[in-house]
Amino acid sequence: MSFELVILGNSSATPTLNRFPSAQYLHVLDHHLLIDCGEGTQMQMQRYKIKKTKIKHVFISHIHADHMLGLPGLLFSMNLMQRTEPLHIYGPDTLFEIIDLFHKNTESELRFEIIKHITNTNTKEVIYEDALLKVSSFPLFHRVPTTGFLFEEQPKLKKLNVVSCKKNSIPFANYTDIKRGKDYVSDDGKIIIPNSELTVDKGEPFSYAYCSDTMYDERVIEAVKNVNLLYHEATFLHDRLKRAEETKHSTALQAGIVAQKANVSKLIIGHFSSRYDLLDELLAETRTQFANSFIANEGEHFFME
Amino acid sequence: MSFELVILGNSSATPTLNRFPSAQYLHVLDHHLLIDCGEGTQMQMQRYKIKKTKIKHVFISHIHADHMLGLPGLLFSMNLMQRTEPLHIYGPDTLFEIIDLFHKNTESELRFEIIKHITNTNTKEVIYEDALLKVSSFPLFHRVPTTGFLFEEQPKLKKLNVVSCKKNSIPFANYTDIKRGKDYVSDDGKIIIPNSELTVDKGEPFSYAYCSDTMYDERVIEAVKNVNLLYHEATFLHDRLKRAEETKHSTALQAGIVAQKANVSKLIIGHFSSRYDLLDELLAETRTQFANSFIANEGEHFFME
Repeated sequence: MSFELVILGNSSATPTLNRFPSAQYLHVLDHHLLIDCGEGTQMQMQRYKIKKTKIKHVFISHIHADHMLGLPGLLFSMNLMQRTEPLHIYGPDTLFEIIDLFHKNTESELRFEIIKHITNTNTKEVIYEDALLKVSSFPLFHRVPTTGFLFEEQPKLKKLNVVSCKKNSIPFANYTDIKRGKDYVSDDGKIIIPNSELTVDKGEPFSYAYCSDTMYDERVIEAVKNVNLLYHEATFLHDRLKRAEETKHSTALQAGIVAQKANVSKLIIGHFSSRYDLLDELLAETRTQFANSFIANEGEHFFME
Repeated sequence: MSFELVILGNSSATPTLNRFPSAQYLHVLDHHLLIDCGEGTQMQMQRYKIKKTKIKHVFISHIHADHMLGLPGLLFSMNLMQRTEPLHIYGPDTLFEIIDLFHKNTESELRFEIIKHITNTNTKEVIYEDALLKVSSFPLFHRVPTTGFLFEEQPKLKKLNVVSCKKNSIPFANYTDIKRGKDYVSDDGKIIIPNSELTVDKGEPFSYAYCSDTMYDERVIEAVKNVNLLYHEATFLHDRLKRAEETKHSTALQAGIVAQKANVSKLIIGHFSSRYDLLDELLAETRTQFANSFIANEGEHFFME
């Protein structure tokens, strides 16, 4: 499995009895990532059997309580679990001020290093990259500086058609180039065997965009263009557009419009106001704009191969 | 009902699936108080149907994550609920530094005033007093400055024996003095009718002491002498005494010794390490020293009339 997303919380500011504040666990390729970390995230990780020890990167969209208040407790628990491996945290500078003061005042010295990555809340930036995965932050439009996060699989290496390679006596030294999509060529550059005969295509790389808290803005649409999976906040029904605008949040209808205009494949909505006991109406409203929409139910797993 | 204590969390640093970190709700006389506020306290208040709006005083023993991390989220939720009534918070100065930075960085302006009461972590002090209730803080002995809290009902007014008063034709103007325990006397000071014939005794005033995180120390015994109900931490079994001493916590056995030496009426123990799935053994160990001991189970109510 190359992509697994687990919803740990889907509530907005005030949690409800059944809805914890924002947090998601993303298992993508061999990475174990945490996206936002609202109050109670460490309890939710226990509930859904996600090992704290595995997490190497934590992405915090902004420092409102419902997106980061679980972080100091999580760090403290990781420390009690004897963690020594560094932890990368990505977030606005104001987040690290709070974390630092917290450690100073509690006289806590962690056994592991926190590697701070201050996000740029004004422009899109690549914040992590390796051979398999690229992560970017991009501006959202909320009451405090906020970013979304875009997780993109790197263009995939192709899978060798070993039978064909052996039949055609392709030298082993050429295998890597062929996996990268090159044809098998003679010394003077002529194609001897085209790549398509030597490989099995693994399909398009996937992408996931996370938009935590934001008002409707065309720039968000640009940032999440063509992703396979989009998470977008939908705090209110559209009859509360005025309240959404005042608090710089989106309505369920607007989340659907973003997905539709950005040409994404699938949308999940979350960050629901505690005023809504049932979420059906929010989903129905989103689906008037974008049919392939789903609720980010707490505990739900979303998979992509 | 004059005294009701609800356990909202009884876990030590790392919460478990079934145990939230420290928080208690105390409904005493007409006061609604919160004692410590670990991560997830606002969710626990919802679970146990405790109205956030009623809370007027919050007592924080120290600033370790598992005792205060629920506070910023609770304040934010109170604000969203349109609270305007001031909230009194009692805790060490380091707590208010964190709260202040949090509000500054989140650009949040609360609609209600927070009235800060900085606790003295070196000596016992009365921190709240009215006609019915007195609250004191007293030093505990932990890794960071920490206080316990002592809640004492003021000496009660007696209840009139109305039948007897009418039968003896006691003037209405004397009723208050009689409720305060005075005899009915003639103008020259001679006792006409003794107080005991005109009143029904309501019993002794009650007292409750909360000892969140502390190593065993004789000074704690002095501070909680003769209380009706004592909550005392019991993080470890006594076979882990070394670990308890390193981390400045108490064992279940030591909690029992404190209760026994302090001559309290009833003991509840909490703040259990996540290493203990079942709590029976901790209670059994405490009871070897003090029989009238109980587990502070999450969700449990303790009443006193």
